[in-house]
Amino acid sequence: MNLTDQIAIANRLADAARDAIRPHYRTVTAERKSDASPVTIADRAAEEEMRRILKAEAARDGVIGEEFGEEEGETGRQWVLDPIDGTTGFLAGRPIFGTLIALVDRGFPVLGVIDQPILGERWIGVTGQGTTLNGTPVSTRVCKEMQDATLATTGPHYFSPEDGQRFMNLAGATDHQRMVMGGDCYNYAMLASGHLDMVVEAGLKLHDFAALVPVVEGAGGVMSDWNGDPLHAGSGGHVIALGDAARLEDVVDALQ
Amino acid sequence: MNLTDQIAIANRLADAARDAIRPHYRTVTAERKSDASPVTIADRAAEEEMRRILKAEAARDGVIGEEFGEEEGETGRQWVLDPIDGTTGFLAGRPIFGTLIALVDRGFPVLGVIDQPILGERWIGVTGQGTTLNGTPVSTRVCKEMQDATLATTGPHYFSPEDGQRFMNLAGATDHQRMVMGGDCYNYAMLASGHLDMVVEAGLKLHDFAALVPVVEGAGGVMSDWNGDPLHAGSGGHVIALGDAARLEDVVDALQ
Repeated sequence: MNLTDQIAIANRLADAARDAIRPHYRTVTAERKSDASPVTIADRAAEEEMRRILKAEAARDGVIGEEFGEEEGETGRQWVLDPIDGTTGFLAGRPIFGTLIALVDRGFPVLGVIDQPILGERWIGVTGQGTTLNGTPVSTRVCKEMQDATLATTGPHYFSPEDGQRFMNLAGATDHQRMVMGGDCYNYAMLASGHLDMVVEAGLKLHDFAALVPVVEGAGGVMSDWNGDPLHAGSGGHVIALGDAARLEDVVDALQ
Repeated sequence: MNLTDQIAIANRLADAARDAIRPHYRTVTAERKSDASPVTIADRAAEEEMRRILKAEAARDGVIGEEFGEEEGETGRQWVLDPIDGTTGFLAGRPIFGTLIALVDRGFPVLGVIDQPILGERWIGVTGQGTTLNGTPVSTRVCKEMQDATLATTGPHYFSPEDGQRFMNLAGATDHQRMVMGGDCYNYAMLASGHLDMVVEAGLKLHDFAALVPVVEGAGGVMSDWNGDPLHAGSGGHVIALGDAARLEDVVDALQ
């Protein structure tokens, strides 16, 4: 299977997730998982549909999904699925959650999709190719000075006290009047499209960040952990995304 | 001028603001005001258009706008305008900012519009009438227990340290796993439509909250300051919005 085929599969997965999710937007009643994170009928239906497609079209690849765990493969490749990233935002009626689809090869993300089912926006990033939004190339923006940087994060309640303090050190070095909260994966899409400079988060799982890496890097940005090292399947969930890779050292320093 | 005429004017104001704002979405370069809050060409163009309409159609009413200050009237009524509430979100490319239009009569908001120009969503609330979203009635949801409440606020960086502590006391009493950040006026619209239970903020100006009151209350909710007292032109900017008025005492207590 070549990259063109894999991109076609990723598009079919995103199409199927859209169809599964859209009828439940602004209608669902939330249930609770044991860890109290919200999950919806839509979340499960979308992952089931995507797994059905992968079973038919890429049966030898592995699958990891937020809702239904891991199925091992035999190719060294894994499809990593998060049907609704930003479930709290979804439940709050905001059309800025996203379906995340990644293809990970020997631990490193090589293809990523961020799909917004309600607005019909789809970012696709592929290693070695440019990122597109609905087929049109997008690129990150230059950020020459830390004090002019717009920083985003989903919320301070996702940081440990220590990580929160490190984040605040960084925020103080940026244009904190323009800092935006909330947003989940949509922040990374907006960074790829040149509307934000930095997204910094902690506690992300592989299904939360794998799809973001090719989207951000294909648009000219960089992603890393809080030490500046590349993200891979074994990364600890501390994530930096920058539109301008020239600021990476400044950000890593500010987070210490 | 009767209420029907005033609603028609409010709709024309919102239409004009949409036309002024839409071309600048995801294209603007921000400039800075002296207080460092971002403001855009779109913000100014929309307020100018709205003031032009008011001069033609409601010349004897006063006008207060975020961008161009106050013009006194002679009727006891004022139109209160915030062309882009959520400028940081607008600049970050999120389609959940809003145009806020209120009619305030002797200090109390009697008509409010929250308009989302990109998604084409318009909430209209009128004292004594129900709130609508694009013409369809909406209503808030019941919230029987504080621990089940979903709370929203735009960001902790808008609170003073003392207010932040009071907010955290409240957050701890709610379902804080589902708390959502960001959102600006869109949170109040989502509360009116039954997708959120509580929005609590501080530091709002009259143009930030006047339009929200008729929208929330017309949908069955309640708005007050942090003491539980009704909001009016002289309120200090500490705002509570609840979908279920039965929780007001619990929220005021938790904020102490």
